[in-house]
Amino acid sequence: MKRQIFTADHEAFRGTVRTFLAKEVTPHYARWERDGIVPREAWRAAGRQGLLGLAVPEEYGGGGTTDFRYSAVLTEEFTRAGAAGLAVGLHNDIIGPYLTGLATEEQKRRWLPGFCTGEIITAIAMTEPGAGSDLQGIRTAAEDRGDHWLLNGSKTFISNGILADLVVVVARTTPEGGAKGLSLLVVERGMAGFERGRNLDKIGQKAQDTAELFFHDVRVPKENLLGELHGGFAHLMTNLAQERMNIAVAGIAAAEHLLEITTAYVKEREAFGRPLAKLQHIRFEIAEMATECAVTRAFLDRCITDHAAGTLDAVHASMAKWWATELQKRVADRCLQLHGGYGYMSEYPVAKAFTDGRIQTIYGGTTEIMKEIIGRSLLS
Amino acid sequence: MKRQIFTADHEAFRGTVRTFLAKEVTPHYARWERDGIVPREAWRAAGRQGLLGLAVPEEYGGGGTTDFRYSAVLTEEFTRAGAAGLAVGLHNDIIGPYLTGLATEEQKRRWLPGFCTGEIITAIAMTEPGAGSDLQGIRTAAEDRGDHWLLNGSKTFISNGILADLVVVVARTTPEGGAKGLSLLVVERGMAGFERGRNLDKIGQKAQDTAELFFHDVRVPKENLLGELHGGFAHLMTNLAQERMNIAVAGIAAAEHLLEITTAYVKEREAFGRPLAKLQHIRFEIAEMATECAVTRAFLDRCITDHAAGTLDAVHASMAKWWATELQKRVADRCLQLHGGYGYMSEYPVAKAFTDGRIQTIYGGTTEIMKEIIGRSLLS
Amino acid sequence: MKRQIFTADHEAFRGTVRTFLAKEVTPHYARWERDGIVPREAWRAAGRQGLLGLAVPEEYGGGGTTDFRYSAVLTEEFTRAGAAGLAVGLHNDIIGPYLTGLATEEQKRRWLPGFCTGEIITAIAMTEPGAGSDLQGIRTAAEDRGDHWLLNGSKTFISNGILADLVVVVARTTPEGGAKGLSLLVVERGMAGFERGRNLDKIGQKAQDTAELFFHDVRVPKENLLGELHGGFAHLMTNLAQERMNIAVAGIAAAEHLLEITTAYVKEREAFGRPLAKLQHIRFEIAEMATECAVTRAFLDRCITDHAAGTLDAVHASMAKWWATELQKRVADRCLQLHGGYGYMSEYPVAKAFTDGRIQTIYGGTTEIMKEIIGRSLLS
Amino acid sequence: MKRQIFTADHEAFRGTVRTFLAKEVTPHYARWERDGIVPREAWRAAGRQGLLGLAVPEEYGGGGTTDFRYSAVLTEEFTRAGAAGLAVGLHNDIIGPYLTGLATEEQKRRWLPGFCTGEIITAIAMTEPGAGSDLQGIRTAAEDRGDHWLLNGSKTFISNGILADLVVVVARTTPEGGAKGLSLLVVERGMAGFERGRNLDKIGQKAQDTAELFFHDVRVPKENLLGELHGGFAHLMTNLAQERMNIAVAGIAAAEHLLEITTAYVKEREAFGRPLAKLQHIRFEIAEMATECAVTRAFLDRCITDHAAGTLDAVHASMAKWWATELQKRVADRCLQLHGGYGYMSEYPVAKAFTDGRIQTIYGGTTEIMKEIIGRSLLS
Ligand SMILES: Cc1cc2nc3c(=O)[nH]c(=O)nc-3n(C[C@H](O)[C@H](O)[C@H](O)COP(=O)(O)OP(=O)(O)OC[C@H]3O[C@@H](n4cnc5c(N)ncnc54)[C@H](O)[C@@H]3O)c2cc1C
Ligand SMILES: Cc1cc2nc3c(=O)[nH]c(=O)nc-3n(C[C@H](O)[C@H](O)[C@H](O)COP(=O)(O)OP(=O)(O)OC[C@H]3O[C@@H](n4cnc5c(N)ncnc54)[C@H](O)[C@@H]3O)c2cc1C
Ligand SMILES: Cc1cc2nc3c(=O)[nH]c(=O)nc-3n(C[C@H](O)[C@H](O)[C@H](O)COP(=O)(O)OP(=O)(O)OC[C@H]3O[C@@H](n4cnc5c(N)ncnc54)[C@H](O)[C@@H]3O)c2cc1C
Ligand SMILES: Cc1cc2nc3c(=O)[nH]c(=O)nc-3n(C[C@H](O)[C@H](O)[C@H](O)COP(=O)(O)OP(=O)(O)OC[C@H]3O[C@@H](n4cnc5c(N)ncnc54)[C@H](O)[C@@H]3O)c2cc1C
Repeated sequence: MKRQIFTADHEAFRGTVRTFLAKEVTPHYARWERDGIVPREAWRAAGRQGLLGLAVPEEYGGGGTTDFRYSAVLTEEFTRAGAAGLAVGLHNDIIGPYLTGLATEEQKRRWLPGFCTGEIITAIAMTEPGAGSDLQGIRTAAEDRGDHWLLNGSKTFISNGILADLVVVVARTTPEGGAKGLSLLVVERGMAGFERGRNLDKIGQKAQDTAELFFHDVRVPKENLLGELHGGFAHLMTNLAQERMNIAVAGIAAAEHLLEITTAYVKEREAFGRPLAKLQHIRFEIAEMATECAVTRAFLDRCITDHAAGTLDAVHASMAKWWATELQKRVADRCLQLHGGYGYMSEYPVAKAFTDGRIQTIYGGTTEIMKEIIGRSLLS
Repeated sequence: MKRQIFTADHEAFRGTVRTFLAKEVTPHYARWERDGIVPREAWRAAGRQGLLGLAVPEEYGGGGTTDFRYSAVLTEEFTRAGAAGLAVGLHNDIIGPYLTGLATEEQKRRWLPGFCTGEIITAIAMTEPGAGSDLQGIRTAAEDRGDHWLLNGSKTFISNGILADLVVVVARTTPEGGAKGLSLLVVERGMAGFERGRNLDKIGQKAQDTAELFFHDVRVPKENLLGELHGGFAHLMTNLAQERMNIAVAGIAAAEHLLEITTAYVKEREAFGRPLAKLQHIRFEIAEMATECAVTRAFLDRCITDHAAGTLDAVHASMAKWWATELQKRVADRCLQLHGGYGYMSEYPVAKAFTDGRIQTIYGGTTEIMKEIIGRSLLS
Repeated sequence: MKRQIFTADHEAFRGTVRTFLAKEVTPHYARWERDGIVPREAWRAAGRQGLLGLAVPEEYGGGGTTDFRYSAVLTEEFTRAGAAGLAVGLHNDIIGPYLTGLATEEQKRRWLPGFCTGEIITAIAMTEPGAGSDLQGIRTAAEDRGDHWLLNGSKTFISNGILADLVVVVARTTPEGGAKGLSLLVVERGMAGFERGRNLDKIGQKAQDTAELFFHDVRVPKENLLGELHGGFAHLMTNLAQERMNIAVAGIAAAEHLLEITTAYVKEREAFGRPLAKLQHIRFEIAEMATECAVTRAFLDRCITDHAAGTLDAVHASMAKWWATELQKRVADRCLQLHGGYGYMSEYPVAKAFTDGRIQTIYGGTTEIMKEIIGRSLLS
Repeated sequence: MKRQIFTADHEAFRGTVRTFLAKEVTPHYARWERDGIVPREAWRAAGRQGLLGLAVPEEYGGGGTTDFRYSAVLTEEFTRAGAAGLAVGLHNDIIGPYLTGLATEEQKRRWLPGFCTGEIITAIAMTEPGAGSDLQGIRTAAEDRGDHWLLNGSKTFISNGILADLVVVVARTTPEGGAKGLSLLVVERGMAGFERGRNLDKIGQKAQDTAELFFHDVRVPKENLLGELHGGFAHLMTNLAQERMNIAVAGIAAAEHLLEITTAYVKEREAFGRPLAKLQHIRFEIAEMATECAVTRAFLDRCITDHAAGTLDAVHASMAKWWATELQKRVADRCLQLHGGYGYMSEYPVAKAFTDGRIQTIYGGTTEIMKEIIGRSLLS
């Protein structure tokens, strides 16, 4: 089924992204995985190519388009290339909106140009050892010290945690508990008392640095408050829909790509004197996955269009998130199996997709949290 | 997610169908179920209301529109009303195209006006005791006797089998086997040697008559050949996509309706001192089904649009057929469970939907046959 | 895998049950289904054959064995025969223990002989329109009037509701709420104010009468209190494990029987020029179901042995209940599908098994309630 | 449910294995994983502890027991410890029987003592790049050169491929194709022309060396033929049941262990102000997995007993293999999810179990091949 949501401009941009990946990413990716991190130079290359800050106004060096479909194209291509370690989607779609949407003019000037060149790599730090799904449990706290905030606490599982130059930290700014009293503070590389833990050893996404962050009496200048004081929770809620769409878009793209690889594999691989594809079970596996992908694609493209138009609600973003990532998980598992022993070898894309993809149902709001959001809304 | 495929005209037509159902069908439906058949008068009422022959040119008394979306609206409303026993969709979407697409001018004049008034109720007879999924196994045969065909054989599971005035019979017209050599012959009520078996006792769809048909030396006039001699198989292939879409449209509509009923039920029903809806398991059930329905709806609406535009291929029609009907089955089972003991009581719509719906993954091409079609196509 | 839990005596008893079914039940069963009820004479025949009151001491006319394996044999054979409508298992395994375990000597004399001859058909009435899973919500209440209880309220979904001569009614005997304050009162046929509603129309188990019961100022003599005053809830808890085992035993037996029928069917039925059994998908279906049945059988036989030895706990009885009945449901659905159109015809055993079996995950404690029991226990 | 298949002797042996693991394996395991291989010294330690060659007659230095339950105990404990990299089970249960069952007296004297001390580490090489599921596709061939065989070809995915001192190689000894004409040849470390490829990079089981093996004009002395000339296929068939049981035993043990870890985790971990265990969804997850484990355990224990008694057939071994490993896979996935972000961190046992376990449904005969075996047998 031909997709109907893209124009020639989007497809041209797809070409640009593919070229970039083929030249700047794929040849080096295995090394980055061994290193557990992407070199800063790769970020700058992405910046030069215009891949950073698609939605940042041109005056700050960005792409100046709020059309989410460009983001979708970028995410799709990075996913197909198995290159999520260079976390451009996170930077653009997930952290970007906090800066473009909430920053003051002064802050924009300070941060956005570097954001777009790749000089300023970003992260967002919500999760803590004791607070993941339940953000109201956040304990990192900032005390008002007149001209600055005194920040104490720790965060964990922070993507770009090692590389980040700018971290949006969710912290409690009043002792009142719960959702109220959270604010967004921007912590920058080099601030005294801001330390990073080790680069966490994950079962997948090896090139992506994920780290613990520690804040010991970090003096965060008042100018680094992002958005409303005590309004952090509302800001998170506003921006989570796009985070979820970003992950969902990657989910369906991964599933489609796995299906493509595996379809080719079973046509090629022989057993019992003929291609696997001639076995009915294999045929049914492919038919079932192809159907699930086609069905999900129709939904996702509708969600992308709606989100680009600003009409996607939280319930549908949550549906897209859990459904597409659970599909990705199922498809990865089935495709690995269809590769037999080769599916277990790290060098096979299907093996890497299996381990890389496993996190998708967890971060950005777990499948279970998505179902809570949907269920509560429908049953209220 | 608001559906985007209908215009005001379609919605006006939806109103007409609802009114018709409320007045002419729902009040009598329980009786029809007990009788195992719908009275002919109901068909005539549908005809008067303009519900028969939507796609038949106006000159023969039909609606004159080939826009499949009207058919979809009609199927959706009949499904919501649990009124599939009055098999208007079968008549319009499945048998209609054979007549409008293949009949000669003379045949059109003979049959289409009655088709539209409800005087001529139709059926299509492919399946035989020994040939269901495998139509190439058909053994009913017609011998060329100069000015007529001499038809012998039997068919089974024929919907409208008791009521039908006109039956499109798939018969072998040359002794060469396989797909070649099948033709479509129209057998009419009253032809000597054409007999009907008993109205089959099914676990659901009680108001729909389903019967065996027997042909003993039936003389079918040459003028009753429909389409190409020996070209029956190709004619079937052409028309099966629409049959599958018709069933798929009913499938997703049934699922959505069940979800609606059940959402209301769990908000109302109390256990352990509060509504079932307050239990997390129940919330997740509803969230999962709502997601599956939303995802499938996006795909189906795309398929409906494509089919209306004449661009839907066999693979996607097959995907829609098996996916939507398997969803319907899963949702019916889960919704029944959520009703507890009440779900097992025939008077509850959810109970009826469970038994009525179970056939959907079987007729019109089983789930397994759909997967074969998809798999073969993708792996060739 | 040969079963290892039965002795020659059990197998001899199996022979007796089979003979009884073949002679007294199977030839008449279709009629009983049409009637919606089993004639009292069938109960008396079962009594004469020694099938009623297996666990009732011989002095009261019973079988005098507390070996649950005989019960299992009886349930298995009734299930294979599709004859659950003659609810001997309910009478023996579910209601019997209340009488043998809680009745006073005087009560035993009054009720057990008739229980064993089939003169006294029994029922147990827990469920109310507003209280199913949540028995603490029971509102039927009995007021102490000195020498009798004045009973008011209503029950629903009561198996044997029309036929029953003796109904164990769970009623509130003190106004204090919750689990405390429930007692078991025996209501007998003919007591003034005890009325039965209509025989409920179910989607399956057509020969089994299920009814609402109404109590308007029924004077229940003090001698009809069963067990401890206000101790009803504890009595229920004690006896529910056996109820669950009875249903689980039927569940796995049904699944095994369906598999047997369907294995034979796919070996026989031809499509595309050879038996269905030659298709890989069909082979996998059979292999998967056979594995699930074998795995479940091993567990169930262990549970039967443990229960016969008095060592089965509530958690494992709950596991057996939900697992075996959900398996039965899945297998019934798959086997129906494998029969194609024939699977939808009421006369086919697989069709009947599909509708008859659907209640199994609901009564005797729903799947969800079983999971609650297990989960709570493991996580406490 | 208390397991009933072990005696005090088995449990004493369990203690020995645990002590060994705690002392000799667990403290070093992370290093072995980094190294991608286990040091030979660990094998010798296992030998000293009496863990190698349980079934080898005492005269050759073995344990002298053919009671498979000891093997099961050993496999269970290695699995619980996440220590499958030290492939003692493979050595004992999978390769051992070829030597004890097929070797001549002279061969036994040559190989078995070292087998038991850990001086001779073994491997079996069936799979080739072009022949995995389909062993009849084996192309490695040995030409008869009078006093020796000239062996040419290559194998892949060979466990212990790097460490092995003795490799049982399946090779074609006559040019006639298919199952006939395969023989087992023992290739030993140091034979000229026998080379090993690199240690393959797998997504899990990092401490286990898996390698390609190459044979270029290797002169294998006639004395190294194992079993019947051209009788290799039959020998494989005889021994595959035990290979499958070994893997199945590991599968259920892994699932049970994961459930244990995760049950503890959800009782401990808090979100939304209380332990995860208080959430109904979590409770249901645990209840469902506990039920599946209990059900499968009953079946596996029956299979272990039967296999120890020599009565387990190929069909039931295949059922055990696919069912237990698919359960392991499902449970690993669900348990990982229940750990949230922590489940993705390599240091968490649940993460390692997820990647380590993924191969189980593939090697030793894939799930699909198991279903073929079962299906064919039941439908023949
Ligand atoms: C690779 C990686 C990258 C990440 N990147 C970032 C990042 O850049 N920034 C950031 O802030 N965080 C990041 N995270 C953290 C991630 O968002 C959290 O791990 C996730 O939100 C889950 O939180 P948790 O790990 O504390 O799991 P928990 O909240 O402890 O959840 C454990 C389990 O309980 C379930 N559960 C929780 N609550 C409920 C409920 N009410 N009902 C039912 N089930 C429930 C969960 O679904 C899950 O299965 C990252 C994590 C990983 C692994
Ligand atoms: C209520 C009802 C109404 C109907 N109305 C009509 C009608 O109006 N006109 C008409 O002509 N027919 C009608 N049918 C017949 C219906 O189309 C057939 O029942 C259906 O096509 C399946 O054929 P079968 O029953 O012969 O099953 P079979 O073809 O015998 O199939 C049995 C099972 O084998 C599976 N199977 C078959 N081939 C394969 C394969 N290659 N690979 C894997 N699995 C396979 C099937 O999926 C099915 O599960 C109706 C049936 C019913 C029950
Ligand atoms: C044919 C038939 C025969 C019967 N025979 C008898 C009989 O002889 N005697 C008798 O006393 N009763 C009998 N019953 C009643 C039967 O036991 C109840 O229907 C059953 O216990 C469920 O109660 P309910 O129908 O009120 O459903 P509800 O309790 O209203 O449950 C509705 C749904 O909510 C779910 N649910 C409820 N609580 C929870 C929870 N805490 N968490 C998650 N999900 C939950 C249920 O699982 C179910 O899916 C019979 C019922 C039938 C249909
Ligand atoms: C870590 C590891 C350790 C191993 N250790 C050893 C070892 O020590 N010695 C050894 O000899 N081998 C070993 N193997 C090889 C292993 O046994 C094979 O990988 C396995 O048998 C599958 O073969 P394959 O990889 O060639 O897959 P293929 O045979 O190519 O199978 C690919 C896919 O097709 C499916 N398929 C194949 N045939 C059919 C069919 N008829 N119907 C339906 N589906 C089918 C398979 O199930 C699989 O999903 C090991 C493999 C791994 C990964």
